[in-house]
Amino acid sequence: MLSEFSLIERFFARRARASTPPLPNEAAKVPRAALGIGDDCALIVPPAGQQLAISTDMLVEGRHFFADVDPHALGHKALAVNLSDLAAMGAAPHAFTLALALPRADERWLAAFSDGLFALAERFGCELIGGDTTSGPLNICITVFGDVPPNAALRRDAAKPGDDIWVSGTLGDARAGLGLLRGEWALADDACAAQLKRALERPEPRVALGLALRGVAHAALDISDGLAGDLMHILKRSNAQAVVDADAVPISRALALLPAEARRACALAGGDDYELCFTAPAGAREAVERIGERENVPVTRIGTIEPIDSPADAPSIAWRDRAGAPLSLTLQGFDHFHAD
Amino acid sequence: MLSEFSLIERFFARRARASTPPLPNEAAKVPRAALGIGDDCALIVPPAGQQLAISTDMLVEGRHFFADVDPHALGHKALAVNLSDLAAMGAAPHAFTLALALPRADERWLAAFSDGLFALAERFGCELIGGDTTSGPLNICITVFGDVPPNAALRRDAAKPGDDIWVSGTLGDARAGLGLLRGEWALADDACAAQLKRALERPEPRVALGLALRGVAHAALDISDGLAGDLMHILKRSNAQAVVDADAVPISRALALLPAEARRACALAGGDDYELCFTAPAGAREAVERIGERENVPVTRIGTIEPIDSPADAPSIAWRDRAGAPLSLTLQGFDHFHAD
Repeated sequence: MLSEFSLIERFFARRARASTPPLPNEAAKVPRAALGIGDDCALIVPPAGQQLAISTDMLVEGRHFFADVDPHALGHKALAVNLSDLAAMGAAPHAFTLALALPRADERWLAAFSDGLFALAERFGCELIGGDTTSGPLNICITVFGDVPPNAALRRDAAKPGDDIWVSGTLGDARAGLGLLRGEWALADDACAAQLKRALERPEPRVALGLALRGVAHAALDISDGLAGDLMHILKRSNAQAVVDADAVPISRALALLPAEARRACALAGGDDYELCFTAPAGAREAVERIGERENVPVTRIGTIEPIDSPADAPSIAWRDRAGAPLSLTLQGFDHFHAD
Repeated sequence: MLSEFSLIERFFARRARASTPPLPNEAAKVPRAALGIGDDCALIVPPAGQQLAISTDMLVEGRHFFADVDPHALGHKALAVNLSDLAAMGAAPHAFTLALALPRADERWLAAFSDGLFALAERFGCELIGGDTTSGPLNICITVFGDVPPNAALRRDAAKPGDDIWVSGTLGDARAGLGLLRGEWALADDACAAQLKRALERPEPRVALGLALRGVAHAALDISDGLAGDLMHILKRSNAQAVVDADAVPISRALALLPAEARRACALAGGDDYELCFTAPAGAREAVERIGERENVPVTRIGTIEPIDSPADAPSIAWRDRAGAPLSLTLQGFDHFHAD
């Protein structure tokens, strides 16, 4: 078994030092780790006048991924879910730390995991600045750091009555992919089945979209636990209600192959999509659509934010069908990968 | 079982909001989380002109603590080992994130764990700004944030030939306490046994000492894996050798009750002490001693840094006895709690 230090050195530290420089299209961005891996702390130099956005996520075998998951995909996803939190805040990624508990030092597994991790990190110019490895049941804890100008962050508490509610991409594919792996349903179309599994295993963090929405969107978050539950976080924090057209929620052609009930449950309550859900004033519709086109990410209006008129009312979602008729949905009990 | 959100809210988020303000003796320090727990990211406002020191540590049951450890002590230790990394860098703590995997939501355990955690956090004005909880084998991952002025950090690569080598406190108690719990040895003196176990379970991060050593010490680190191994990190990074008087390494009266061989192994190679090991020029001896007195932390000179004269020589430690005669020590194979 490799020792802790040679493990860190071989798969992470050396690679971190060799990482490609940040993307050329972010002119203001320079490597900012004054001191990286190998000391008691990493040192970073926050850019003057910016706030530092910080998020941490812990991924556990059996709860967030299967034991036999492709380690390259796991390396990708472990960082992707964290970058997605930065995206949802409108923050530009710049660094991360990695803490890793491993049952054994399997070199082939580590090589693939670190390849998946660094491939994504390098795409976003996000530098590995420190970490910890230990033996133990497989556990991956990443903390990411990003920059956002003061008062520009896309917060959950910023939705306003009259705002449109938007989502990026399509929803439900990741949960449908999980259902395929679990045998909850099957798809005859292999290409569509592969697409759904890929959505589960290789989510794409909407970093560029989040950055572009600064100053345009009001509230935002990323959909990790399912639209219904995550939108409620915005509503509770903003003390508002929502009217959502369930039929307007965008789904992929692959998801459309599932039975109607499963399809709707996946789209409205499936987790692990890591698309953005955001609100923006009605006057910003064209601006939002232009941003979607520019960033090559579909954006779809699915509803509106309504005021809470009576103190007795609580934040809630009123679901409607395409014709505007009320829908009574029971989405409780539809679990996703890391359901509570 | 409590859901994830009510767990976070009850034991961590509410308490984080209610935390006492930072210590009055750090005039420059104000709460700096522009946005704390409950959004996709926390937002902090780094103070102008300071560098941000970041460290992350993952603690795993069986590897870093026993399953039956007092959860109050575990909450203390999980943060203490991270604060110790800031101390070793000369950085002032200001915030941390907590990611927690729990096999079950045991309210009594969580209450005690969070009490131990926040008691230490409040002593150091260190604010919980975010985190993640999930079910899974018990795992605690904390990332801490501290401030340090540019070029003031106590780095591992800064030792200079002629420097004295110092350690704070006494060494070996934590490893001796582990040996008591493991039944490797016994102590008839109950008070001394309790002191050794306390050293293992409730290490005191040397934050004030680390801050005071800025501008005085050259290199520093905290002793988590044992003096012999940790001093080698300084020597490798500084490309230097060390001569250390093994008999000068300070030990407690409790440790002195152990047999000579165990005593020496604990002091020189025992882990989990979280004392500082640092180097400082000979001209700074009085300054270092005054700092130790002022901060009420014993500081002891144990050796000197020597140059590497020949390119064929490698960083190494030459151990001596009190009379200056060479000692041949075999410290390999003396494991500590989280040995590789």
